[in-house]
Amino acid sequence: VRAGDLAAPFPTVHLDTSAVAAAQLMARRDLPGLIVVDQVGGPAAVLPGTQVLRMAVPGYIQDDPALARVVDEATADVFFRELGDRTVADCLRVERWELPVVGVEASVLEIAALMARSRSPLVAVVNNGGSLVGAVTLAALVDRITAS
Amino acid sequence: VRAGDLAAPFPTVHLDTSAVAAAQLMARRDLPGLIVVDQVGGPAAVLPGTQVLRMAVPGYIQDDPALARVVDEATADVFFRELGDRTVADCLRVERWELPVVGVEASVLEIAALMARSRSPLVAVVNNGGSLVGAVTLAALVDRITAS
Repeated sequence: VRAGDLAAPFPTVHLDTSAVAAAQLMARRDLPGLIVVDQVGGPAAVLPGTQVLRMAVPGYIQDDPALARVVDEATADVFFRELGDRTVADCLRVERWELPVVGVEASVLEIAALMARSRSPLVAVVNNGGSLVGAVTLAALVDRITAS
Repeated sequence: VRAGDLAAPFPTVHLDTSAVAAAQLMARRDLPGLIVVDQVGGPAAVLPGTQVLRMAVPGYIQDDPALARVVDEATADVFFRELGDRTVADCLRVERWELPVVGVEASVLEIAALMARSRSPLVAVVNNGGSLVGAVTLAALVDRITAS
């Protein structure tokens, strides 16, 4: 079994997608994260759900977690206000993490090791041309491992 | 809304639970990770699913990812053999990450900031005595935020 066999279609966003729309997509579809594709259909970023959440946590809270306690209530407004009218590209940080992307020939073990190393529950699968063909989620990988 | 209101019961494992049993619990219940409790019922560790997977990825693969490609096929045997007869405590690494645990009075924003910072889709909630009362998952938090 190779990554190409395991890869399932996965919703994508673009660098110029609004950050609010991207966050809403993840929430509504209950996705473990987001895959951002570039103009030629290759993965520009793979964001674990926690890092999509990070885009929406107000900067002043990230700078000083103690402030989070004094904010009276966190409604969707607080998070959506932070996202504002920024695009996904505006929210991306330079990541020191390995991009969780594999080719269609990657083995189950390669995918597992990459998820563990990159702490990403979502791995993008690309064809030889570098275009996204789908994704393998942690849940799908664990299902596959335990079914064997 | 405070962490105590959001916390839902969450299955736990102990430091002396077998690593195989812990991994199987996560797989069967489709959990986003595991909470390890100590002898007095407090959280000893909170492991994102990717880090539970890491316990099961053979050490030689983690040391040299290129080897993953040459391993013929990754069946459950490969992973379970790595877990062997080790306990959860045997598999825990010293983590440089903040333990994702909050008190029952933590706000939604505190939980969100902690998930983002610790890259954990699972936060344990403890009472004033330090005992586990439940957990908040990323999915539950996002539901709460988008419902408000």
